[in-house]
Amino acid sequence: MPEFATDMTAPEPSFVHPFDSAIALAPAAHAGHFSGATSPAYANMVGPFGGTTAATLLNAVLQHPERQGDPIALTVNYASAIEDGGFGLVARAARTNRSTQHWSVELLQGGTVAATATAVLARRRETWSAPDVRPPANLPSPDTLTRAGGARRPPWFKRYDMRFVTGGLPEAMDGEEHASSHSSFWVRDEPARPLDFASLAAICDCFFPRVFMRRRLFVPIGTVTLTTYFHADAAMLAAQGERPVLGVAKALNFRNGYFDQTAEVWSDSGQLLASTHQMVYYRE
Amino acid sequence: MPEFATDMTAPEPSFVHPFDSAIALAPAAHAGHFSGATSPAYANMVGPFGGTTAATLLNAVLQHPERQGDPIALTVNYASAIEDGGFGLVARAARTNRSTQHWSVELLQGGTVAATATAVLARRRETWSAPDVRPPANLPSPDTLTRAGGARRPPWFKRYDMRFVTGGLPEAMDGEEHASSHSSFWVRDEPARPLDFASLAAICDCFFPRVFMRRRLFVPIGTVTLTTYFHADAAMLAAQGERPVLGVAKALNFRNGYFDQTAEVWSDSGQLLASTHQMVYYRE
Repeated sequence: MPEFATDMTAPEPSFVHPFDSAIALAPAAHAGHFSGATSPAYANMVGPFGGTTAATLLNAVLQHPERQGDPIALTVNYASAIEDGGFGLVARAARTNRSTQHWSVELLQGGTVAATATAVLARRRETWSAPDVRPPANLPSPDTLTRAGGARRPPWFKRYDMRFVTGGLPEAMDGEEHASSHSSFWVRDEPARPLDFASLAAICDCFFPRVFMRRRLFVPIGTVTLTTYFHADAAMLAAQGERPVLGVAKALNFRNGYFDQTAEVWSDSGQLLASTHQMVYYRE
Repeated sequence: MPEFATDMTAPEPSFVHPFDSAIALAPAAHAGHFSGATSPAYANMVGPFGGTTAATLLNAVLQHPERQGDPIALTVNYASAIEDGGFGLVARAARTNRSTQHWSVELLQGGTVAATATAVLARRRETWSAPDVRPPANLPSPDTLTRAGGARRPPWFKRYDMRFVTGGLPEAMDGEEHASSHSSFWVRDEPARPLDFASLAAICDCFFPRVFMRRRLFVPIGTVTLTTYFHADAAMLAAQGERPVLGVAKALNFRNGYFDQTAEVWSDSGQLLASTHQMVYYRE
């Protein structure tokens, strides 16, 4: 009775990466409406890691039946603290052109807007291409570096393998101000996971708040808005696979409650995958 | 009959700056709905200058009766070419917190969405503040430099007094590729106008497309999304007044139809007023 053979063999339990669980969305009855929930695996000190929130908002666009093309740009505005638990998402194509598509997304929790996003998708065509800046040269490879750790880090931190070349989170948070907030480090999902647009969007929020680096002091902070530009297309992400990418981050300015931070994410072959910018609220 | 005296004396014709005319909005019957029109004074090769479009979208927030605080961040998505003529705007406070406010804005023309924007407003409080990067040092002052000109430039270009220190638009567009797209220049409204959030938002789009600088070639381009972070508060803008600000611009990467450009706008006393980033479509 060969027709029963597959039923009688238990399938291998298939591994679902915690990142995929964290950004998973269930489509609701209305087109473009989804429901999701925060994941304990990506919890921050309070509420979820902002990177998974950004990836979840992007995912609503990526999963939408009207989606056309791949992400070029994503802006996420963190309108309020997101509480642990369920939320709703509404994604709407504000405009669809021949080669580009403009999206507006809202994340709702408890009947109010907790985050908004806009995304630009496009179908790329081959053109003249060139870098204008280069990645830092002569960096040690990730396997020669130690993974950043720390028992008191929030859960999301354990979902990334980060290996600092320069500017790791200081051991002593002694309030001794430093001149620069620059960091460079290798990072990948933990466990390893092939890079895609959603995971790249999340990695773009994994840089420590620069105010901690500068002031050597923990002060209350919260990203208010995050913009990521995707320089990579799907083929370039596939070529990167599970290997660590290089993050380079700095701030420009801290002033009266708000600072910016700006970062580049490079492939291990020296190609710019994403550039990303955010404004962060801080107190004191 | 002194009560008629003021009627009998013609008032001095009051000067309205063309920038204020260009971004002027008339409130419509519904709260948060406005109408506006493109201005010939700020026309680009096709349609309006993107900087005035950004400032107009921001102006809908600034003029809204529910507005609370000053701009911290603005993202404008150019969803389609805007045609010369009238348009409608709808601004909505997606979320109002104690010290921050998140806005969504749409620009409609011919019944379809031509641009979207999100803005974050905040009431700042005095905190520890410090720059992380410094402006370029030892620059020549604007009055020792020549104003950039050119009869074939579009009208909007004539509404800015730009004086290049490095990286002006090349005289010869000979297709001889250059290694860097970096520019630094002094810029102010023409005629001079006191700097405010709206004019700073527009100045953040006055950097020539970096692809022209790199390739020394005019190719079809269009900004798809522009994000500006306001490091200055109203007092800092008032202190800057009408004097030229320093713009420093570069690209990071050009790849298959899209490149980014990133810029800083500095006060003449060396304080960062704004940082700004955009993704630009290009052909060929």
